[in-house]
Amino acid sequence: MNAKINTKRKRVKFASDNVTGACPEVLDAIIKANDGIAPPYGNDEISGVLQEKFSKIFEKDVIVYPTASGTASNALALSTVSPSFGNIYCHKFSHINVDECGAPEFYTGGAKLVPLSGKDGKITVDELNDNIGGFGIVHHTQPSIVSITQATETGEVYTLDQIRNISEIAHKKKLKVHMDGARFANALVSLDVTPAEMTWKSGVDILSFGATKNGCIAAEAIIIFNKELVGNLPFLLKRSGHLLSKMRFVSAQLDGYITNDVWLKNARHANLMAKN
Amino acid sequence: MNAKINTKRKRVKFASDNVTGACPEVLDAIIKANDGIAPPYGNDEISGVLQEKFSKIFEKDVIVYPTASGTASNALALSTVSPSFGNIYCHKFSHINVDECGAPEFYTGGAKLVPLSGKDGKITVDELNDNIGGFGIVHHTQPSIVSITQATETGEVYTLDQIRNISEIAHKKKLKVHMDGARFANALVSLDVTPAEMTWKSGVDILSFGATKNGCIAAEAIIIFNKELVGNLPFLLKRSGHLLSKMRFVSAQLDGYITNDVWLKNARHANLMAKN
Amino acid sequence: MNAKINTKRKRVKFASDNVTGACPEVLDAIIKANDGIAPPYGNDEISGVLQEKFSKIFEKDVIVYPTASGTASNALALSTVSPSFGNIYCHKFSHINVDECGAPEFYTGGAKLVPLSGKDGKITVDELNDNIGGFGIVHHTQPSIVSITQATETGEVYTLDQIRNISEIAHKKKLKVHMDGARFANALVSLDVTPAEMTWKSGVDILSFGATKNGCIAAEAIIIFNKELVGNLPFLLKRSGHLLSKMRFVSAQLDGYITNDVWLKNARHANLMAKN
Amino acid sequence: MNAKINTKRKRVKFASDNVTGACPEVLDAIIKANDGIAPPYGNDEISGVLQEKFSKIFEKDVIVYPTASGTASNALALSTVSPSFGNIYCHKFSHINVDECGAPEFYTGGAKLVPLSGKDGKITVDELNDNIGGFGIVHHTQPSIVSITQATETGEVYTLDQIRNISEIAHKKKLKVHMDGARFANALVSLDVTPAEMTWKSGVDILSFGATKNGCIAAEAIIIFNKELVGNLPFLLKRSGHLLSKMRFVSAQLDGYITNDVWLKNARHANLMAKN
Repeated sequence: MNAKINTKRKRVKFASDNVTGACPEVLDAIIKANDGIAPPYGNDEISGVLQEKFSKIFEKDVIVYPTASGTASNALALSTVSPSFGNIYCHKFSHINVDECGAPEFYTGGAKLVPLSGKDGKITVDELNDNIGGFGIVHHTQPSIVSITQATETGEVYTLDQIRNISEIAHKKKLKVHMDGARFANALVSLDVTPAEMTWKSGVDILSFGATKNGCIAAEAIIIFNKELVGNLPFLLKRSGHLLSKMRFVSAQLDGYITNDVWLKNARHANLMAKN
Repeated sequence: MNAKINTKRKRVKFASDNVTGACPEVLDAIIKANDGIAPPYGNDEISGVLQEKFSKIFEKDVIVYPTASGTASNALALSTVSPSFGNIYCHKFSHINVDECGAPEFYTGGAKLVPLSGKDGKITVDELNDNIGGFGIVHHTQPSIVSITQATETGEVYTLDQIRNISEIAHKKKLKVHMDGARFANALVSLDVTPAEMTWKSGVDILSFGATKNGCIAAEAIIIFNKELVGNLPFLLKRSGHLLSKMRFVSAQLDGYITNDVWLKNARHANLMAKN
Repeated sequence: MNAKINTKRKRVKFASDNVTGACPEVLDAIIKANDGIAPPYGNDEISGVLQEKFSKIFEKDVIVYPTASGTASNALALSTVSPSFGNIYCHKFSHINVDECGAPEFYTGGAKLVPLSGKDGKITVDELNDNIGGFGIVHHTQPSIVSITQATETGEVYTLDQIRNISEIAHKKKLKVHMDGARFANALVSLDVTPAEMTWKSGVDILSFGATKNGCIAAEAIIIFNKELVGNLPFLLKRSGHLLSKMRFVSAQLDGYITNDVWLKNARHANLMAKN
Repeated sequence: MNAKINTKRKRVKFASDNVTGACPEVLDAIIKANDGIAPPYGNDEISGVLQEKFSKIFEKDVIVYPTASGTASNALALSTVSPSFGNIYCHKFSHINVDECGAPEFYTGGAKLVPLSGKDGKITVDELNDNIGGFGIVHHTQPSIVSITQATETGEVYTLDQIRNISEIAHKKKLKVHMDGARFANALVSLDVTPAEMTWKSGVDILSFGATKNGCIAAEAIIIFNKELVGNLPFLLKRSGHLLSKMRFVSAQLDGYITNDVWLKNARHANLMAKN
């Protein structure tokens, strides 16, 4: 991606994050999970408690589906909420629009990503508002989701106010709000807010929780803040080959990652490194 | 569509075109086709000679597939040429992008329509050139087609030079050129050029030839200027329910439409009406 | 299709039906519809009253969507009711399984047609019952629809009892019942029952009402007996290019076809011809 | 799956294989791969040499794409070779037909799995031959692939002769041969033949090479024996979210698995355990 960005504005930069391995706690969790036998397809103990642990972190009963790839998380989350004729509003430089070879289109059966120009790398309420329309008219694809990236590909971080304002518009018009949190932890420590504040308390309905870029090998999670949005996700997961038989090894990574604030420590360290 | 357009610029306006019925010649052709029996699925005599007649009109051996809807013509033409991970470059106000409820995405299996802002309602070579990229990089959807509308939804007509320049860029980068000719005849008589000049001689590879808006009941044609581009179209036609069993009635409309310059007379009349 | 069939059993044979044109009443309706202007996309007067007329015929408030092709009717009806991971149970020789080049799979986004061997060309309750299973298990595609063809491709006609028994099993297991009625009229007069009896009174939820093979040029209708099943059909119709702009000409054919029992007269005549 | 199988016939049984963890060599390979940094998306050194190592094992220059799930491997392999309107012939109890929630249909855009009854759990040449047909007829989905499972879900192993005979029919009719090798190693040691003999030397064109069930955590490979069949696979991999950013950890598992005959030892041990 060759997005030209304003390098003078203050941004949170992140150290390159796909080239490193796992942090020690995550690797240990994998090794420990390898001991003994366990039921397949997420019916193991580690996967079982994960939902509880994430619910504690997010101060709400959440639904958690571990996956092994961020592109899969995004595409599955979007296809759970959008019909095939839906509009997904996103920044023109967003990962879902530019860097996933059309995964959201594939998973949704052909939804339309509506690219917004934004300001400082972020979607603006005004542009969003201008672009949402055509409800109920069969000639037009139907507004379904707003997807924001936290932090963005260009290192921008939405403030809580910005998230809330976007969510307000979206919900007022019956759209859902998705957050691509491939760099969720980095944004979180940068804003110094709680996971709840940065998500459902600000109107986010469904989250792609990233972990691979911040200490895991291949571990992400789709986190749903409202049970009614789960829809057909379990079937879509299986149907797309993302329900791993030995799912416990993904769950174990996530477990090691969120236990004892490992994820937050990693993110603080990464943010610090990137500043220097 | 609420596209704000510059009303001072000279444009070819068209009389409203979906509310009228068929012209007498086309209705007569339907009535005549109803006489006797004929093989189904386009294997009848009328359908057979159509290809020859269109080849004469276009001064080239063309491949013709009649359809009953413009949206189907466009979506089938695009899906014949673009892979599911293709980019289709089009004007942001184009029918394929705004008025077909995502038919191109559905038919292609999720290709991405890249909306261009253009100038005076038309795609510009510069913007097109800036947006084509990412070849061979698996993260990016792959540039596949440029689709231009002649005349455009807002009544603009591409000059031959403009078509040629767009085609040149497209072909240089290995993209194909599609023309949405829902109002093909109106543009043709407005430019006062030949069908060949406005299409393949200017680099167009595949054409949605419109007739419904200019004197037919429900008749369009996908016209392919290069046999190698036919690909899987016959199967896609059937698979989408657009291979009508009594196809001869669509072919008959087209036959009545292109015989004795009926289509050109209709278009001249419509353009004249619209001016007044 | 080269299905070997028992030629000794009594069956209703039908005269070849794709090679003829329209009957006089239908052709007259087209000519009459051509007079004057009318709103596009089914918002015309003829299309408007069609729903009322069909409701009278079926003794129930039905929802009617005219289409121009039987394959489209079937695929649209099925995709309205089945998820992409659904199972559609059908006879192995059914049109949807053998003669539509995978249209149901295309429209549903990849549902699985489960072919049943049946007896005398018809699905049996026992075989159906044996094959429905796997509910709620993510590894398995999910039972969604039973599709029966009335009359079948091989000329068999389901009795009311047979339809009722199939529907009973289907509904008990939360599946919907689709009837492919490409030869609906022929079956109806053969059984000498009412349209209501052969459909919703026997448990049919959604019907592909055929007219092309029995006197029309290109006219079919999707008829829904329960408003809640309409789902996204209006968008799917448009998205697939089957919402014709001059829809009134399809509606007019249907109108001419069902007025004054034309359709029943045609079917009686065809059945008689086929016997001789 | 509750397939009733003949338990008297001699079969190779396998110990349950999704509940165990990784074997020591594979776990060590993961730990070792975690040391230092490496390019993402399979551009690392481990992934690089994998192709060479597999080529040695298969005595042929093969193309290797690592994945993290068997369902993904199968669906990606099939969608690389079959068009959306293709027929994929398989055993009615095969994993692709029964246990993947329609993944092949999803990935191919709606291809039709044609389920064969087979004999002793395996496809027979005669039944296959009877079912392949309809070439070039637009009404019919088009024969594209035969998929055999080695060893089958019910523990059967195709002999080399059986594979060769199936391949011969397939190739004669221009179909490709896919092998679902989720239990490839078990079948290999059971037959006591070479990987080359059990695949391309017997006509297999594309293989889903399983490793997860025999000592890995989440590692499979799509192995292509003919470069021309690669097609769009790299884009489909990315587009489906199966191109992991830290792909080297999947490659490392495969590397540990195939080095020093670990895979064959594991399989011999598993087969032995299953017999007792």
